[in-house]
Amino acid sequence: MTDRSNPVVGRIRDQAMGVYERIRQKAKPQMKLPIRSLANVKYRPQAGYFQLSGRNKVRTMTVGTVKTFAQSLKMMAMSQDLIRTGRHSTKREAYYQAYNWGDAAFAAQEESDTVMDDVEAMLGAHREAMHFRADEHGGEVAGELIVIDRDRKSGRRLEIDCARFGSGAYSVPTVVEELGFRTAAKFILAIETKGMFERLVEEDFYSRHHCILVSMGGVPSRACRRFIRRLADDRGIPVYVFTDGDPYGYFNIYRTLKVGSGNAAHLNEFFCVPQARYLGVTPDDIVEYKLPTHPLKEVDRKRAMDAMRNDPFIQHHKPWRAAMERLLKMGVRVEQQALAKHGLEYVASEYLPRKLKAIDKFLP
Amino acid sequence: MTDRSNPVVGRIRDQAMGVYERIRQKAKPQMKLPIRSLANVKYRPQAGYFQLSGRNKVRTMTVGTVKTFAQSLKMMAMSQDLIRTGRHSTKREAYYQAYNWGDAAFAAQEESDTVMDDVEAMLGAHREAMHFRADEHGGEVAGELIVIDRDRKSGRRLEIDCARFGSGAYSVPTVVEELGFRTAAKFILAIETKGMFERLVEEDFYSRHHCILVSMGGVPSRACRRFIRRLADDRGIPVYVFTDGDPYGYFNIYRTLKVGSGNAAHLNEFFCVPQARYLGVTPDDIVEYKLPTHPLKEVDRKRAMDAMRNDPFIQHHKPWRAAMERLLKMGVRVEQQALAKHGLEYVASEYLPRKLKAIDKFLP
Repeated sequence: MTDRSNPVVGRIRDQAMGVYERIRQKAKPQMKLPIRSLANVKYRPQAGYFQLSGRNKVRTMTVGTVKTFAQSLKMMAMSQDLIRTGRHSTKREAYYQAYNWGDAAFAAQEESDTVMDDVEAMLGAHREAMHFRADEHGGEVAGELIVIDRDRKSGRRLEIDCARFGSGAYSVPTVVEELGFRTAAKFILAIETKGMFERLVEEDFYSRHHCILVSMGGVPSRACRRFIRRLADDRGIPVYVFTDGDPYGYFNIYRTLKVGSGNAAHLNEFFCVPQARYLGVTPDDIVEYKLPTHPLKEVDRKRAMDAMRNDPFIQHHKPWRAAMERLLKMGVRVEQQALAKHGLEYVASEYLPRKLKAIDKFLP
Repeated sequence: MTDRSNPVVGRIRDQAMGVYERIRQKAKPQMKLPIRSLANVKYRPQAGYFQLSGRNKVRTMTVGTVKTFAQSLKMMAMSQDLIRTGRHSTKREAYYQAYNWGDAAFAAQEESDTVMDDVEAMLGAHREAMHFRADEHGGEVAGELIVIDRDRKSGRRLEIDCARFGSGAYSVPTVVEELGFRTAAKFILAIETKGMFERLVEEDFYSRHHCILVSMGGVPSRACRRFIRRLADDRGIPVYVFTDGDPYGYFNIYRTLKVGSGNAAHLNEFFCVPQARYLGVTPDDIVEYKLPTHPLKEVDRKRAMDAMRNDPFIQHHKPWRAAMERLLKMGVRVEQQALAKHGLEYVASEYLPRKLKAIDKFLP
C-alpha cells in the first residue's frame, strides 16, 4: 500500500498541517482529542457497543505540555514510517525506538503507551492501523476457512486452509487488518478454553457442522476480537459463544467480545463483535443437562453484583439479568468441560447439536 | 495404533495383572511408584536433566488407601480406553468423567490431578502418552519446517508447511507425540515473546538464515518443550534460546526448557531440551550493544540469589554463575526488545547474525 492511499497517513498529515499552520500564523499549536474516560462512555444498543459520548479536550502547546506535544508528533511520524516500510512495531519496541528522541524520550513504557492511546483517539484510528501492536496472542483457528495473506518475501498471495492442520491450528497474528477470507461456513464458534477447542477438533465437529472454531484462550485479546469481527462482517456469518457458566465467562469474556471494554471506548467500534450471541453454558443448562457444579466463590458474587449494578450492557438486556439472578439463586458455577460427565464426545454429539437447533433461545 | 502394540497399554496390563495375581494369592494388592519430591532428585550433567534418584514407595491396599487404589486403577482403565478410541482427555475432563465412579469419584480436581501424576510415575510414561493433556498453549512456529500430521476424519497424511503462514503461525497442539517432521533447517530459535517472534517473521529472518522460529510465550509449556525436543532429536538440529536478559529469562524460561523443572522430575526425560544453548540477551551484550536497561527489581535479585544457592544446574555451570554475578553487580536487567533502540530491523540484520557467528560463546 502506498502511503498516499493510506487513510491513517492522510489523517497524520492533516494533524501535522494543522500544527504547522498555527505556527505560521504565530498562534500556539493545538491538537484536539476525545476524552477517554468512563464518564464519557455510553452503551449504544443500536450500534451494539460502548461508544464515546463525543466530548473532546484541546491540548495546546505550552511550556508544561511541550514534551507530550512533541512526543505525540514524533509518535505519528513513527507510524508514518512504519506504514511506509510495511513494518509493525510492538508497543515496547516503540518505547525503545524513542530512546533516540533526545529530550522527548520517554521515562517509562507507561508514558509511551499513554501517548500512543492519545494518538489513537486523536486520529480516530486503532493502533493496529497505525502499524503498532501489542505482545499478545491472537487466538487459534480450525475449521472451514481459507485465510488469505501474503508471503513476506515474494509478496505472493498465500491461501491458508484452516481445515488442514490436523491436531494443530492456525495462530492468528496480532495485526489482522490485511487478511482476506474465503469460507462457506455456517457460523463461527468462539470457545473459552483451548481444552474445549481441541475436544471439538478431535470430534471432527467443524466438518460435521460446517463451521469455524476459534479458541479465545480466556478473555479475547484485541487481535482475537478483531479477527472474529472482520471475518463475521466480511462473510456475513453469525458468531456463537461457548464459555464456562460463571460471571467471568459471561461478563469478562462474552461481554468483552460482544461490546468491547469500558476503558477503551474510543476503539470498541473496531474491537467488538455485535453479532455475537451466547450459546452456553447457561444456568438453565445446569438443570437440563444435569451438570456437576461448584459453589460460586466470593469473587464470582462480587463480579455479578458489580455487573448488575454498573454494566450498561447487562442493564439493557433483561434475559441477562434474569440468567444472572438465577445463577446467584442457585449459588453455583459450571465449567464447559463438565459436559464430559456424560462422555467425552457428548458435547459434540449431543449438547451443541441440540443447542444449535434453538438459536433463538441464545442469550443476547 | 492398535492397543496391543502401544507400550503404555502393555504397562497398564502389567500393573493390573500384578494386582490381580496378588488377589488370587489372597495377598494384599500392591502398586510400586517412585517418590516424587525434590529430596529424590539429582541433576545429571551427562543426561542433561534433573532425574529421580530411584527411591520408590510401595502402596499397599488397606482400608485407608482403598479409595486412592481404586482411583489409580480406574485412571489406568480410562487411559486404555482413550488410547483405544484415539481420543485425548484434558485433566479437567478426566475429573468430570470420574463423576460416574461412585465411591471412587474425586472430591476436587486437585485429587484427580494427583492420582494422574502417580499413575504417570508408576507407568514411567508421561500423561500425553496416556492420552491425557493439560489446557495449555503449545507455542507457535514459523519457518523452514514441514509438520506431518493426520486428517482426523480420513486418516490421510497431512503436510503442514510452516513457511506458508504469512503473518500468522502454526499453533502447536497440546499433544505432539505422533507428529512427524521434515526440514533442512540449520537450527531452531526458541524465543521468549510473541512480539520478538513476529518481528523476526516480519524481517524474513527464517528464510534468510534457514531456521525454525518458535514462540514460547514466556515459560515454555510441556507441549512446547516436548515439541522442540522431539523436533531437535528427530532431525538432529541445534536449539538456540533468545530471552530477556534477567533472572526470569535465564532461570525460569531457559533453565526449564533445557533441564526441566524440579517438581516434575519423573518427566524431565521427556520434557527437557538438553541440546539447548543460550544465545542471549547476556549481560555482556548490554555493554557490547549499548542497550537500554532497567534496574533489577527486588524479585529479580531474590530469584538470582535463590538460583545460585539452590539450583544444581547453575551450580554445575561456571559460566552461568559468572554471568549472574556480573548482572547482579551491574544491578540491571535488559529486555530483548531493547535492541529496537538501534532500529526495528537491527535484531535481525545485525545482532542475531553476529551472535550466530560465535556459537561457541553461547552460555551452556
